[in-house]
Amino acid sequence: MANTEELEQKVGEMSVAEGEQEDIVDPWTVVSASAKGIDYDKLINRFGSSKIDDELIKRIERVTGKPVHHLLRRGIFFSHRDMHFILDQYEQKKPFYLYTGRGPSSEAMHLGHLVPFIFTKWLQDTFDVPLVVQMTDDEKFLWKDLTLDEANRLAHENAKDIIACGFDIKKTLIFSDLEYMGQVPEFYRNICQISKLVTFNQVRGIFGFGDSDSIGKIAFPPVQAAPSFSSTFPHIFNNRKDLPCLIPCAIDQDPYFRMTRDVAPRMDCLKPALVHSTFFPALQGAQSKMSASDPTSSIFLTDTNEEIKTKINKYAFSGGGATLEEHKGKGGNCEIDVSYQYLTFFMEDDTKLEKIRKDYTSGELLTGDLKKELITVLQKLVSEHREKRAQVTDEIVKQYMTPRKLAFDY
Amino acid sequence: MANTEELEQKVGEMSVAEGEQEDIVDPWTVVSASAKGIDYDKLINRFGSSKIDDELIKRIERVTGKPVHHLLRRGIFFSHRDMHFILDQYEQKKPFYLYTGRGPSSEAMHLGHLVPFIFTKWLQDTFDVPLVVQMTDDEKFLWKDLTLDEANRLAHENAKDIIACGFDIKKTLIFSDLEYMGQVPEFYRNICQISKLVTFNQVRGIFGFGDSDSIGKIAFPPVQAAPSFSSTFPHIFNNRKDLPCLIPCAIDQDPYFRMTRDVAPRMDCLKPALVHSTFFPALQGAQSKMSASDPTSSIFLTDTNEEIKTKINKYAFSGGGATLEEHKGKGGNCEIDVSYQYLTFFMEDDTKLEKIRKDYTSGELLTGDLKKELITVLQKLVSEHREKRAQVTDEIVKQYMTPRKLAFDY
Repeated sequence: MANTEELEQKVGEMSVAEGEQEDIVDPWTVVSASAKGIDYDKLINRFGSSKIDDELIKRIERVTGKPVHHLLRRGIFFSHRDMHFILDQYEQKKPFYLYTGRGPSSEAMHLGHLVPFIFTKWLQDTFDVPLVVQMTDDEKFLWKDLTLDEANRLAHENAKDIIACGFDIKKTLIFSDLEYMGQVPEFYRNICQISKLVTFNQVRGIFGFGDSDSIGKIAFPPVQAAPSFSSTFPHIFNNRKDLPCLIPCAIDQDPYFRMTRDVAPRMDCLKPALVHSTFFPALQGAQSKMSASDPTSSIFLTDTNEEIKTKINKYAFSGGGATLEEHKGKGGNCEIDVSYQYLTFFMEDDTKLEKIRKDYTSGELLTGDLKKELITVLQKLVSEHREKRAQVTDEIVKQYMTPRKLAFDY
Repeated sequence: MANTEELEQKVGEMSVAEGEQEDIVDPWTVVSASAKGIDYDKLINRFGSSKIDDELIKRIERVTGKPVHHLLRRGIFFSHRDMHFILDQYEQKKPFYLYTGRGPSSEAMHLGHLVPFIFTKWLQDTFDVPLVVQMTDDEKFLWKDLTLDEANRLAHENAKDIIACGFDIKKTLIFSDLEYMGQVPEFYRNICQISKLVTFNQVRGIFGFGDSDSIGKIAFPPVQAAPSFSSTFPHIFNNRKDLPCLIPCAIDQDPYFRMTRDVAPRMDCLKPALVHSTFFPALQGAQSKMSASDPTSSIFLTDTNEEIKTKINKYAFSGGGATLEEHKGKGGNCEIDVSYQYLTFFMEDDTKLEKIRKDYTSGELLTGDLKKELITVLQKLVSEHREKRAQVTDEIVKQYMTPRKLAFDY
């Protein structure tokens, strides 16, 4: 995360360049220029991705024969690149694989961190494909005040949370960069190939690196790019370098994959496809994403039922009326109400959610009642997660993190 | 190797900065500003290293109880950093290790490439210490128009020439970056640690990298730096990170190790010590070092006796008189005579070399006679090398290149 001075500078540069303030979205900074939060349509235009429209959603349902996940249906995964190509593959019974990741910067993951994994699990179950999960402990070492050992330890701790999401061990590899680099030569070989094709000018443009940034940071983007190419995983893909990759991630990670897609053809590789999610809002509102470093901004996966209740009641920004009379008269605003937003991420029942939206908007449902619904949903989600995580032993983590053949033949 | 335009620009910049033209010496460029060749005393001042003086040479002879190698006695290894510290260690019977390397850019190595290895073998035999030899196949991939496989193949070919120099297999590890990175996690861990401490500004200053250089090049210096730290070789040094390192290399490699010495204390590591050699001159004269890409500038280790004879007679720049009369009258100039210079590298007999110097300087010995002496020395050297190299099988290369414990206990 950039410090305040850097942020102000970035905002300043944006203002000068664009004549008006723009949202700042890169892998280290998400700051909205407006109180309404990030303008995702503008972001699609700026990044050059495509909106996930009804036609695409219908096609996914048609080719899989299943309803899509509510995160897709509700526009939380809202943008994509080359998703139609992945569906073409699937229709032709040709293989592809999923790649997602996590930067292990803190022991306790929060609800926002769970979102891509919940969706990735649905993708894996629905399409029956292999999944690789990159733990960028090297990145966290390079960006944060962490030792290598501590970053690597956090990778293992976070892997437990990821495993607790229910990924099939026969179909999933989780790997730490610091470990995998010393295990599988193809990783470094692909990093070399990517690094040869990208200039400092380009990473400055894409990531905003400056002259006083460490060469460790400058060298990192190819590390996150390399798993987009199936040759990085010779154990899984039998040295094939032609398997398409689909990357579910939050939109702030897109710069890495714009770079990857730019170099792919020059490496005789396929461009990875992507599905992008919006950000999970902080309890205080949608202007920024949750931060693991501010405990009052997030619900952690380690929070007790009591902590969840207190945080939601105390901090969750309300879109309700200022007084009971006002709320009853004018109704609540679901667009900015954080509790309602959270329900769109985690309440699976569409009918129930729609009733809540209607009743809250009309003023019939009070903020306290809405928060109570959310507290119930989150207490269940978090306590179930906690139970599953408690069963993940170090030995199980080791199995997931061992480079090996998975249950697919290539 | 930089192109002419880049060279002119570099020379131009030097001129503006210094008020007069200076030699250009960095890992990719060695160009002398004067016909006399590189001014090594100036280089010592500029790089901040120390001259190898009589006192140091006497101390080496005292602590080892042996005469020093002629490459040291004759000022070919002329500069050092912290050599006294290494001798302190040796006197106290504390361990250290040797690190040198080779960039495998061509199949055939030339005589100049042999010099650091001849000297390194003497160091290993004299001090009885482990040696690690880095083959920077990744560097050659990043800088040249080579594939990864071709760069790696050249690393194995060149390893045969290095092994033919007679290094003890029980005391020597040769490693390719592209292979070792995928075998030993400590290599990447140390690269991360170094990369975190060096900014783009710094590598621009040290290596002259620019905005349009690839991030592969920018990321490379820590790869060459990492073997300076014993923790990069856990098999050899039993995970100890406190073993001092002595690096014999040509002076153009010093920028890598200035950078390494700068970051070492911040990593709680020892600064590597160095001994620097002058460059082996091209047949055409001392203005530049030999180039593997210009066959007429070099004697290759694959050249036949006949080719050696022809090249010396045809191309070796002579410091003799223009005519027989002039030579007999004024004598020859050993300072600029390439054949004489080559003899200082490869003729072991001091008495004989001194007689040649005297007789050539007085005009008694003719250029043809001098060249004949050199041809005899080189034909013997190269044919013996060829025979030894022919005995180095792929299996032997594999043994040298396997990360393993060596014949030392730590």
